Amino acid sequence: MSLNVLFTARYERWETHAPILRAEFEKRGLDVNLSTDLSPEIVDYIIYAPNSPVQDFTPYTRTKAVMNIWAGVETVVGNTTLTQPLTRMIEHGLSQGMREWVAGHVLRHHLSTDLDVLGQDGNWTPHIPPLADQRPVTVLGLGELGSTCARTLAALGFPVTGWSRTQKKVKGIICLSGENGLQTALTDAQIIVLLLPLTPGTENILNAQTLALPSKGAVVINPGRGPLIDDDALLAALGSGQIGHATLDVFRTEPLPPEHPYWAHPNVTVTPHVAAETRAETSAEVIAENIRRGEAGEPFLYLVDRSQGY
Amino acid sequence: MSLNVLFTARYERWETHAPILRAEFEKRGLDVNLSTDLSPEIVDYIIYAPNSPVQDFTPYTRTKAVMNIWAGVETVVGNTTLTQPLTRMIEHGLSQGMREWVAGHVLRHHLSTDLDVLGQDGNWTPHIPPLADQRPVTVLGLGELGSTCARTLAALGFPVTGWSRTQKKVKGIICLSGENGLQTALTDAQIIVLLLPLTPGTENILNAQTLALPSKGAVVINPGRGPLIDDDALLAALGSGQIGHATLDVFRTEPLPPEHPYWAHPNVTVTPHVAAETRAETSAEVIAENIRRGEAGEPFLYLVDRSQGY
Repeated sequence: MSLNVLFTARYERWETHAPILRAEFEKRGLDVNLSTDLSPEIVDYIIYAPNSPVQDFTPYTRTKAVMNIWAGVETVVGNTTLTQPLTRMIEHGLSQGMREWVAGHVLRHHLSTDLDVLGQDGNWTPHIPPLADQRPVTVLGLGELGSTCARTLAALGFPVTGWSRTQKKVKGIICLSGENGLQTALTDAQIIVLLLPLTPGTENILNAQTLALPSKGAVVINPGRGPLIDDDALLAALGSGQIGHATLDVFRTEPLPPEHPYWAHPNVTVTPHVAAETRAETSAEVIAENIRRGEAGEPFLYLVDRSQGY
Repeated sequence: MSLNVLFTARYERWETHAPILRAEFEKRGLDVNLSTDLSPEIVDYIIYAPNSPVQDFTPYTRTKAVMNIWAGVETVVGNTTLTQPLTRMIEHGLSQGMREWVAGHVLRHHLSTDLDVLGQDGNWTPHIPPLADQRPVTVLGLGELGSTCARTLAALGFPVTGWSRTQKKVKGIICLSGENGLQTALTDAQIIVLLLPLTPGTENILNAQTLALPSKGAVVINPGRGPLIDDDALLAALGSGQIGHATLDVFRTEPLPPEHPYWAHPNVTVTPHVAAETRAETSAEVIAENIRRGEAGEPFLYLVDRSQGY
């Protein structure tokens, strides 16, 4: 008998994802009826995105798992109607895309590449940056994405400090945790990369007090979650020169409204949530593998611990 | 008895280099009289840069080695008065700086970061690049700098092809050589990095014929030597769209004159020879080590093979 799998993510993704998902199901010998329209009571698995119209999971009485196709689940974990196992997306494309974006923007700031891109005025004015080993970088968040980026930056030669709520161990990275660890991690940092999950404990983790800790003129790079930053505090720190530049990929409201001060600020680069996109190919592998695991009674990949919120 | 070491590089480097060199001599127990002004007939070693006033080496009758503090020696090797052993500079700072610059600019083009830097206009228009594994990069030149950069790019996820005149082997890189190898290396490349030495065989290696081989819209990045590129051919290829962008750090004439068409071209980024600078600290170690070796009768590091030109 076929498994009924409901795809309920943004509609525009359906045409991209459906054929790739079907190929992955077939590869694993899974007989799947994949559809965007199924009666709740017959659905075995849900492929989900937080912007789906499905917000009440009560009628999905036989559903064995809700599989988020995004990495972030903060808008899903609080849904009390969701009692089924919830998985999130960790796939090669997402972390690979993230490490490319983070390495690119860390190097851009390290090398002051904008001076060249914006300064093609015929003036030959060499600017020699220090070597990477003189540029301390701090990565807040050492989950899959944070630790991958931290390792990539360390391999490029940067001295990298990582911070996470609970103590982690990542080869080649100074790992800190807890409240005191956060102070140490931020103090004298020259580039700060935010890759924390959004939880009540991480909201506004960059605020007036913590933004005072880095080296004067430090750069903030946020490909994580918009609310990790207190926007008013960041604008104030940019105004005083305490923070030299901010490259922001995520915001409290997206798209970032055209009138938001970030757009016009000379020391802010807004990127339109492009740092890491779930790639259909790699995400389909994770989804198909989790359905196979569900049917074989094996533990799901990337199961969300709802007590932690991610 | 003291060794007489003549420092004859650009005058403005003296104040930076002298104290660091003296510290390295002391570390190795070398008794050195380091000066910018010594009678030629008493000079034991010359620390040299091609822009030095010393162009006739005939009077330096007892000099045991001329040690170039730059990587490139193409303007020195042809000097027939130079019969002493000639060494060039290969030091951690140079290759580390180069790999940071190359990784930064390859990622900049890969991610189309300029769209963000130049487009802070309030328009939220996401541009998702392919993953690095879909972006073939070709590095021309697999010497110390080329192979270091090739390995760095491969570690970031790019499929890297390297080409050199004589066949090399670099882990994780497809290595090609010879005339046919060059055609293969350039064909369908999306990003091309030039790190060849300048020799009669490599001058104008990017010309009308070879610039037709890469994928349409490919990017040329030249941190190597200006004359590796036929400038008229590159401007023509940029005009037709065959080459999408060029980021050039080195030029036939430096500083690049303000009226040169590269400055105003919308698809050219001029950087003022900043890709890799000899770092005084690391270069002093190589110089001091070579003097130690010369005195101990050991072979010099980075001795130039004048039949090859580098």
